[in-house]
Amino acid sequence: MTALEEKILKEGTVLPGDILKVDCFLNHQIDVSFLLDMGREIARLYENQGVNKILTIETSGIPIAFAAAQFMNVPVVFAKKNKHGNISDQVYSSKVESFTRKNVYDAIVSKEYLSKTDRVLVIDDFLAKGNALNGLMDILNQAGAELVGCAIAIEKGFQGGGDELRAKGIRVDSLAIIDSMTDCSLTFRK
Amino acid sequence: MTALEEKILKEGTVLPGDILKVDCFLNHQIDVSFLLDMGREIARLYENQGVNKILTIETSGIPIAFAAAQFMNVPVVFAKKNKHGNISDQVYSSKVESFTRKNVYDAIVSKEYLSKTDRVLVIDDFLAKGNALNGLMDILNQAGAELVGCAIAIEKGFQGGGDELRAKGIRVDSLAIIDSMTDCSLTFRK
Repeated sequence: MTALEEKILKEGTVLPGDILKVDCFLNHQIDVSFLLDMGREIARLYENQGVNKILTIETSGIPIAFAAAQFMNVPVVFAKKNKHGNISDQVYSSKVESFTRKNVYDAIVSKEYLSKTDRVLVIDDFLAKGNALNGLMDILNQAGAELVGCAIAIEKGFQGGGDELRAKGIRVDSLAIIDSMTDCSLTFRK
Repeated sequence: MTALEEKILKEGTVLPGDILKVDCFLNHQIDVSFLLDMGREIARLYENQGVNKILTIETSGIPIAFAAAQFMNVPVVFAKKNKHGNISDQVYSSKVESFTRKNVYDAIVSKEYLSKTDRVLVIDDFLAKGNALNGLMDILNQAGAELVGCAIAIEKGFQGGGDELRAKGIRVDSLAIIDSMTDCSLTFRK
């Protein structure tokens, strides 16, 4: 999505530790009309795939998941991040290591909201090593739900998580894939 | 909003500790088309008020803020919950005590995204004692931004937070106000 690449170049900042700061439009302040464009594009990519539910994870996956959901006429379920270690038997859960925050949490989803009749599109804002996605796919597996694909706003291609998933035959669509990133330059995969 | 009252009666559950569980449509699974109706109603209530930004707080304020924002053509800023105690001088922050989780966190907003030229509508999913709203208003005050009003999905009227704010002259619009709540009955303010 060329408009997203241009927006990253114009408004993003690279911080030490391979962090791309895009909190002016994606994950602190939200450029709602731009996110609707992203949601429309995801809906186009997954047209006629029989998706009946979107799964994302708090916090910053929620706006883009909500945007896509409204063009696909499906509900969103967002996994919660539990840092307390107490997991009830009413939830599916999976341990996730956070790249940005350097911590581990349990992603949890109430058993009420995922079942084996669901065909699910997983959406998130970032894909780096794929830890959050792997946690969400683990949860889908526990629920017996079917994974249709993963739609991502920004993939850090150089961290390899997306290509590992693709090599396993999982459909991954990222609206922008960054191939390399330094303080002074940022290149996208074409 | 009668449709919201009906939905709470039909799909909500009262849990011990005055907790209303509505995570089947509002704060775990999201009924996107219903939230768009709520967003449309908030946009109608704040038409021609010169609102140029919506402020909410993670996590479950985000979907309804996003829904309202798209009908008002304004960006959303969501405050983050910081539990680590380290506050940078690049952010506005305010201590908030959580009613549901029985903990204290710092609500933080980057100084880049709020300024004295902003006319802000604050949106959240729940209003009980008003702790989160008071934190967000404290942040607006630090930024010198103008508060236009607060729009809430569900107000627990019997906990008094909303009426305290109204008594101070603050505009508070709740789409449903619960006057009393027990395991077997739930009444709304008309």
